[in-house]
Amino acid sequence: MHLLVIGAAGMIGRKLLSAVVASGRLGDRDVSRLTLADVVKPEIPAGFSGEAAGLALDISDPRAARQLVAGRPDVIIHLAAIVSGEAELDFDKGYRINLDGTRHLFDAIRHLSEMDGYCPRVVFSSSVAAFGAPVPDEIDDTFLTAPLTSYGTQKVIGELLLQDYTRRGFFDGMAIRLPTICIRPGLPNAAASGFFSGILREPLAGKPAVLPVPDTVRHWHASPRAAVGFLIHAATMDTGPVGHRRALNMPGVSATVADQIEALRRIAGDKAVALIRREPAPEIMRIVSAWPRGFAPDRALALGFSAESSFDEIIRIHIEDEMAGEIRV
Amino acid sequence: MHLLVIGAAGMIGRKLLSAVVASGRLGDRDVSRLTLADVVKPEIPAGFSGEAAGLALDISDPRAARQLVAGRPDVIIHLAAIVSGEAELDFDKGYRINLDGTRHLFDAIRHLSEMDGYCPRVVFSSSVAAFGAPVPDEIDDTFLTAPLTSYGTQKVIGELLLQDYTRRGFFDGMAIRLPTICIRPGLPNAAASGFFSGILREPLAGKPAVLPVPDTVRHWHASPRAAVGFLIHAATMDTGPVGHRRALNMPGVSATVADQIEALRRIAGDKAVALIRREPAPEIMRIVSAWPRGFAPDRALALGFSAESSFDEIIRIHIEDEMAGEIRV
Repeated sequence: MHLLVIGAAGMIGRKLLSAVVASGRLGDRDVSRLTLADVVKPEIPAGFSGEAAGLALDISDPRAARQLVAGRPDVIIHLAAIVSGEAELDFDKGYRINLDGTRHLFDAIRHLSEMDGYCPRVVFSSSVAAFGAPVPDEIDDTFLTAPLTSYGTQKVIGELLLQDYTRRGFFDGMAIRLPTICIRPGLPNAAASGFFSGILREPLAGKPAVLPVPDTVRHWHASPRAAVGFLIHAATMDTGPVGHRRALNMPGVSATVADQIEALRRIAGDKAVALIRREPAPEIMRIVSAWPRGFAPDRALALGFSAESSFDEIIRIHIEDEMAGEIRV
Repeated sequence: MHLLVIGAAGMIGRKLLSAVVASGRLGDRDVSRLTLADVVKPEIPAGFSGEAAGLALDISDPRAARQLVAGRPDVIIHLAAIVSGEAELDFDKGYRINLDGTRHLFDAIRHLSEMDGYCPRVVFSSSVAAFGAPVPDEIDDTFLTAPLTSYGTQKVIGELLLQDYTRRGFFDGMAIRLPTICIRPGLPNAAASGFFSGILREPLAGKPAVLPVPDTVRHWHASPRAAVGFLIHAATMDTGPVGHRRALNMPGVSATVADQIEALRRIAGDKAVALIRREPAPEIMRIVSAWPRGFAPDRALALGFSAESSFDEIIRIHIEDEMAGEIRV
């Protein structure tokens, strides 16, 4: 089978491709061909023996979308996006990439579908940014999407398009609303959500970290490994039982910052916790207070999606996958 | 003040303009200028003494949107749409008018806003087609929008854009989800919802009508007069208390077909009811069964929107406004 990943050079894209190439399969089908696209040319993962192409392109150009689907991939995983902060700063760029780019992709598939019945599985990564305050402690599967960022708006519009195009038979779409991914590997970044990972990742490596919000802040998390699992499941599951509502809240762990810190203490000791410096930042607190605190993702669980069940597990996965099993504090 | 109405030649647009011209005001402001646009050139209502222009244009052309807002209207009421059935039959046309047309309008306003701080009130007519089965008997203000038509999808996307553009300060938007308008004046039409009006309008005029669904079917209704009231209120209300969630379920009357028929009997007698012929149509029943049956529109009521409180009132309004007070059965 032929797999197309758009946004293949990002953190989740690279982890997804490592998993696919390690097994050589997606679900129970052999992957014989990979097309990888991003704004920079993605690397072809080492060890892949099939046909592979890496493409650098701008998905806001309709020709790029036509080029991507011309090879009629069986599965399309669309991860490409301008992230939340940048979409807020650059209105035009956010709408051009996140809305127009997604619509061009869906329309390119539709045109092939209308020609010859082409009908790939399409997986679209959405986000808990689909929701905005006020929200209940546990958001259920029938709660309204009321985004408070342009990024969240663009993601919800992508979900709506995916559901309409799926209903009309142009493709078989699944949109998954990813929790905040924790622990993000790599360097600290400027994202408002960065501290959720930073207060764990940095101390585990013996480095100091800044906590800009109170310990009582609650949020919804899943590991990068869980995110890859969501994408593979969405790409391979039987969509028959899903019905018309194709945008699903993913499972995760609802935890306060205090819960995160206590899990860090259990795994890496007081010395690690002592590396966290409290430095309140009202602007970050303002942003974070509008975010979801937890979900009751009943539909996703019933459809076979799974995530971690504790923050200890999330930390252990980071130590296994990113630190070769070794804490450095 | 300068009022722009897009979709001014439609039934609701004409009734809105009659009301505005009759009083010469919108809320407590004198209307000194009218710009009326539609796909056909709208008539300027008789008796308007201010400056007025009627424009025939295609709102899917970005130049049309720029032309419409160049005169910097204070209030813009956007009613133009390809209706549900046609948007389902002609995918490209529905998206071109209902999505691209709305986005071009919003972007044309945004460009002026970015230039000089222009910030009009924008009222967008959305629809209960924003919702799709399964739905509870009473849809509350936090229920998810899961449309089951391309029209409904396009309306929800318009709401999302309106909310994001409002949040960013480009304009001051309100989206109102209109109930099914009953009794629609005029000739019977092919819309799946047409019978809700037909089974009352035709017998009141001494003509036969066909009922294609069981008497137990429940739906959400408001009169054309109520719809005009919603638009005027949305155009003139203080939006301060509304917050970021600018798409509101409008009040209405939840009634079964049996309730409608009994109201007809009370007002026009058995002779009128006898003109209704039952002719079950499974395809219409299938469509109607996915529609909302009722709402708990608490936010709209608290914000001062109001509709009829019984079906008798809905019928009496039709007799007053469309039949010069006289039943003809």
